Amino acid sequence: MNAFPPLQERALAALSAAMPADLLLTEGEALERYSRDWSGEHYGRPLAVARPRSADELSRLMAFCHEQKIHVVPQGGLTGLVGAAVPSYPGGEVVVSFERMNKVRSVNPIDFAMVVEAGCILEDAKRHAEAADCILPITFGAQGTCRIGGNVSTNAGGFNVLRYGMTRDLVLGLEVVLADGRIWNGLRTLRKDNRGYDLKQLFIGSEGTLGIITAVALKVFPKPEQVETALVGLASVDDAMQLYARARRQCSDLLTAFELILRGGIEIAIDARDDLPDPLSKAYPVYVLIEASAAGRVDLRALLEGFLGDAADLVLDGVIASSKAQGDRLWLLREMMVEAQGRGGRYLRTDVSVSISSLAAFVSDTLNALSQKHPEAIAVTYGHVGDGNIHLNIVPPAGMPVDQFDSLFHAAEEVIFDIVDKHGGSISAEHGIGRVKQEAFLKRADPLTLELSRRIKDAFDPRHLLSEGRILASADGMAEG
Amino acid sequence: MNAFPPLQERALAALSAAMPADLLLTEGEALERYSRDWSGEHYGRPLAVARPRSADELSRLMAFCHEQKIHVVPQGGLTGLVGAAVPSYPGGEVVVSFERMNKVRSVNPIDFAMVVEAGCILEDAKRHAEAADCILPITFGAQGTCRIGGNVSTNAGGFNVLRYGMTRDLVLGLEVVLADGRIWNGLRTLRKDNRGYDLKQLFIGSEGTLGIITAVALKVFPKPEQVETALVGLASVDDAMQLYARARRQCSDLLTAFELILRGGIEIAIDARDDLPDPLSKAYPVYVLIEASAAGRVDLRALLEGFLGDAADLVLDGVIASSKAQGDRLWLLREMMVEAQGRGGRYLRTDVSVSISSLAAFVSDTLNALSQKHPEAIAVTYGHVGDGNIHLNIVPPAGMPVDQFDSLFHAAEEVIFDIVDKHGGSISAEHGIGRVKQEAFLKRADPLTLELSRRIKDAFDPRHLLSEGRILASADGMAEG
Repeated sequence: MNAFPPLQERALAALSAAMPADLLLTEGEALERYSRDWSGEHYGRPLAVARPRSADELSRLMAFCHEQKIHVVPQGGLTGLVGAAVPSYPGGEVVVSFERMNKVRSVNPIDFAMVVEAGCILEDAKRHAEAADCILPITFGAQGTCRIGGNVSTNAGGFNVLRYGMTRDLVLGLEVVLADGRIWNGLRTLRKDNRGYDLKQLFIGSEGTLGIITAVALKVFPKPEQVETALVGLASVDDAMQLYARARRQCSDLLTAFELILRGGIEIAIDARDDLPDPLSKAYPVYVLIEASAAGRVDLRALLEGFLGDAADLVLDGVIASSKAQGDRLWLLREMMVEAQGRGGRYLRTDVSVSISSLAAFVSDTLNALSQKHPEAIAVTYGHVGDGNIHLNIVPPAGMPVDQFDSLFHAAEEVIFDIVDKHGGSISAEHGIGRVKQEAFLKRADPLTLELSRRIKDAFDPRHLLSEGRILASADGMAEG
Repeated sequence: MNAFPPLQERALAALSAAMPADLLLTEGEALERYSRDWSGEHYGRPLAVARPRSADELSRLMAFCHEQKIHVVPQGGLTGLVGAAVPSYPGGEVVVSFERMNKVRSVNPIDFAMVVEAGCILEDAKRHAEAADCILPITFGAQGTCRIGGNVSTNAGGFNVLRYGMTRDLVLGLEVVLADGRIWNGLRTLRKDNRGYDLKQLFIGSEGTLGIITAVALKVFPKPEQVETALVGLASVDDAMQLYARARRQCSDLLTAFELILRGGIEIAIDARDDLPDPLSKAYPVYVLIEASAAGRVDLRALLEGFLGDAADLVLDGVIASSKAQGDRLWLLREMMVEAQGRGGRYLRTDVSVSISSLAAFVSDTLNALSQKHPEAIAVTYGHVGDGNIHLNIVPPAGMPVDQFDSLFHAAEEVIFDIVDKHGGSISAEHGIGRVKQEAFLKRADPLTLELSRRIKDAFDPRHLLSEGRILASADGMAEG
């Protein structure tokens, strides 16, 4: 059951002795649910799981771990899917779970700000914001599972980036426990504050490698009184991007989502659920799910109808939801596609971005290359194209032996990333690097970027005890989980 | 004429010999205009002025300076007003001027992105964006003088932060020459990119202390087809903040400015120009200048009229501009107030922020305290109150001897900053720290923030040659310029 070296066993015994009795889980079975991420693909057994109730408690734990050189990895909802939060350090890692630090501390509808603990589940935070007639516009499929600390640590994206920005853009302040256990208090709700270096920016998106976020102050926005949702069918990705260019100019920054789905994705969704009919009168190569929202005296329906009516040269067919329920049904297509795309088995996820102006060419180049080199692979293509962000996923053909999956995934990923490189894009738009994207990241990163990143890591975590081996390679090598 | 120590004289000679003949200005008179900032209050003579034409040329200069341990300070339009960009290092500093690196490299209206060199004057960049039917929404009085590199280095704010965020929120990518002369290339226009640490965040707002920005990729937005401007009179700051709360909910994120001006400011403006009449039928204690903008099918005029019409319980009087010319006249009040507030002499500028919900109390507490402790001082109060940002400036009374100004300014600043502290606010909302705010910053900063900031400085500029003594105190002490 236990494969950790004696050194770690001793450290663990010392840690258990030093901490409150109920802070740590150390028994085999209790640790299982902290060992595997949401995809089931990334597994690593924790040395122990600490479940602090406060930053102070975490501070004491970290001070002890720092002194004893025990490795630590913070863990949120395990939905990041790049292997950042499952234990992986060869000598063993203590997982810090935030399930006991999950409170919404405040929502202030005058300041349009809320303060939440790192373990707060995103959907809970969103619900609290809505109760104060506000919205927290971080929105994506995993919102019922992911935790705010993880969202901030990974600079999460999602559907609403278009209008409200990445998670980074929504963070007003942070409280962070440093590698040595000291608490950095930057938990403010000021909207403008230019006092010296903006240290919180370093903790956002650094995947737990520079400090452990314990609480977050976030911007919220007036809750829109009107939300309009439309699904349109188009002839090509190029037409979808032309429609987007017009939408940005004609919809006055009121667009909240502009999601591209290729026909294959729609078919996955309607195959997966009997109660989901083909949404338009016939099949189209490309679909776009559009959402706009507004508060106050804007006739949003007329705006969306007018915009789509004028785009008859691009829009082959479409529906504007006549009720919230119908809007939800349109979104259900998007959700079911994501849920059912792997047909219950493994598949390759990618999460790439290119500039908006080259997105159509990127998709067509990539699908062409894949169909030439891997005609057997099934590509599922969708994404937040208003941000230039595409998820181009690869599903193995029915009947392919499981032991051939990895080589297909690796080869297909190379094809996709090569074309990302040609378009000057990013191999990780919103999920981060973790361990899963590390090899591809390090291969492409320029040496100066890596050198500066290592200097920052050294400045914040000189003993390299925090989430070691994520993003940057560990000095002493990493075992794959 | 020359008071630099012999060591610097030798370094300068070596530098002149090593660089192209026209890169450096070293003669006394030519240096004058790089010695004093826009306010005229901060003065420091450069060791020399380097005017690179490219990042490569700057790279060679920096490599040489690094090797020779010559101090360097980058300089933009000298409108930051906190003493960051005028030379001040006691042993002498080489100023890097960006006046030769002022090109707009590209504007892409599909990507909604533009790339400009650091020396581009903000107004030029804005003009190029408009020529592509876009806007670059960094907007403030100094836009005809300031340069983009300075805007990014100071994370500039301004009128449109409300809608579009601080300069940080608009930066997609940077090119930076490091202290040792190496060029860090992060000049990308991707809207989503989560590949490792977001290094550009460190250079934004660090006032030239961590690297020298040479080029910037910025977000631009669709040019609004409609802009509506209104000026309203109100009974109190509290009413203004209540109006703001309603505006955020009823104007659907279409507000682009919400500027508070107290009566005193309006009087300064109308006194300064004969052709500016009192804008409303009578005088009111408080005014708000409101701007909303939209593209596409939004009836913005009806939205603003409806919003203000419903706010008759707060709005005592008001005017909505019926033409662009009339809107410009309303903005002219704001501009003239800023220009004329000092009555041609020195005055104390502050630039503080508090949470929106405590702004009214902050203003009233502060004005009360000032009128008790310094009844002779004239307070001019205005600001971007939608962001919680107030400029509460102190003008000496007519007839006060000039040699008493400093002690009045110092005492009044203490009064203001003490109340900022009580409200948990920031003593620098948008201008940064530089040298002018350093003492007040260091007095208040928590030791851990300073320690982490110093570690970052050490990681990026281990020899402490770049803008040394700004934000953080210099290890070897600083002379005030």
